[in-house]
Amino acid sequence: MPIETLTVHGYSVSGNCHKVRLLLEQLGRPYRWIEVDSANGATRTPEYLAKNPNDKVPMLEREDGHILTESNAILCWLAENTSFLPADAWQRAQALSWLFFEQYSHEPYVAVARFIRGWTPLDSPRRAELPRLIERGEQALAVMEQHLRKAHWFTGERYGVADIALFAYTDCAADGGFDLGGFPRITDWLARVRATAGFVPMPAVSDEAAERLAAS
Amino acid sequence: MPIETLTVHGYSVSGNCHKVRLLLEQLGRPYRWIEVDSANGATRTPEYLAKNPNDKVPMLEREDGHILTESNAILCWLAENTSFLPADAWQRAQALSWLFFEQYSHEPYVAVARFIRGWTPLDSPRRAELPRLIERGEQALAVMEQHLRKAHWFTGERYGVADIALFAYTDCAADGGFDLGGFPRITDWLARVRATAGFVPMPAVSDEAAERLAAS
Repeated sequence: MPIETLTVHGYSVSGNCHKVRLLLEQLGRPYRWIEVDSANGATRTPEYLAKNPNDKVPMLEREDGHILTESNAILCWLAENTSFLPADAWQRAQALSWLFFEQYSHEPYVAVARFIRGWTPLDSPRRAELPRLIERGEQALAVMEQHLRKAHWFTGERYGVADIALFAYTDCAADGGFDLGGFPRITDWLARVRATAGFVPMPAVSDEAAERLAAS
Repeated sequence: MPIETLTVHGYSVSGNCHKVRLLLEQLGRPYRWIEVDSANGATRTPEYLAKNPNDKVPMLEREDGHILTESNAILCWLAENTSFLPADAWQRAQALSWLFFEQYSHEPYVAVARFIRGWTPLDSPRRAELPRLIERGEQALAVMEQHLRKAHWFTGERYGVADIALFAYTDCAADGGFDLGGFPRITDWLARVRATAGFVPMPAVSDEAAERLAAS
């Protein structure tokens, strides 16, 4: 039986979407990518909402039409029975803990600061949120830095899903106005992730977003 | 070998903590509960931070001192090899998807609105956040209502971890100012959860919180 070709509906410069691309590339799994400009309403069309009522990317679609949403749930499903998800139940729970940490304590600050700086007008009132986002995002980075004092990876003894999830927005934290200079262990870990087999970087943002980020 | 007694560090009227109590009760597992008043800084002591640098409850502690954080990761670990977590990988991924939905698209609105109304002074500037929290929380409830048009449970064919996670704050959504009158399928599902074997309700909030909720 041939391996199923999966379809990813995603916005390439979204860290949540890049997580899925990175793992698929590292697994060597065939996939089709459908670009969805979530920053401009493409997840709120009737066709998209019929597949994901929560109007978010990424979304995984199987050949039989079945859908899986939530980036970190997609990572876990793709990683089943591979080295990217620990086989030991306790260690797998630790990896899951980092995945929930990423979505609750990291992404809403580190990723949202990047979004506001790159994808909203320079005079957007949302920019008033940035100081609080930076403060909370730095707290998340400090928790990561502390973990890396005693461990090489977040997933367990080996690189895997939790590293991929945390890498996505930490690697572009500077876009959100974060300075990683005070986080030497995170800086080393980012380099270790970039050196893993099959690693692919996130594509460059649009010229418009790049100009806003430069001017922020 | 006797079954290990787990220790839960939790704040009893926190939905995130009640998730863990509810599953432990339904599993019939022995546990010890250490009350941690997270609303008044008890997660920011040096002793607590040494165990959980992310200063949150709940936190699970094993007899050997090993720690697991993040309510939904704790649920998954406790539910391994039980009917509360689907054995099928695809269905388990769907349950995980709802767990991430709960932490990203539901809890930050439905739970935080309740916290602001019950645990901040009546003249707190944070109360200005409430209209936006209600709007976003209602979007999450609408996604849940839509799912329940075609399914009985969130976890899969049977009640389990995703139902427990979503129940925790949906059942007390009125505390946050939400009206479930427009969500009949959610109302029915809440009743089905309350009827499951071994169900225990969340303890009552303090008189002070109850008075604030009544006055909000």
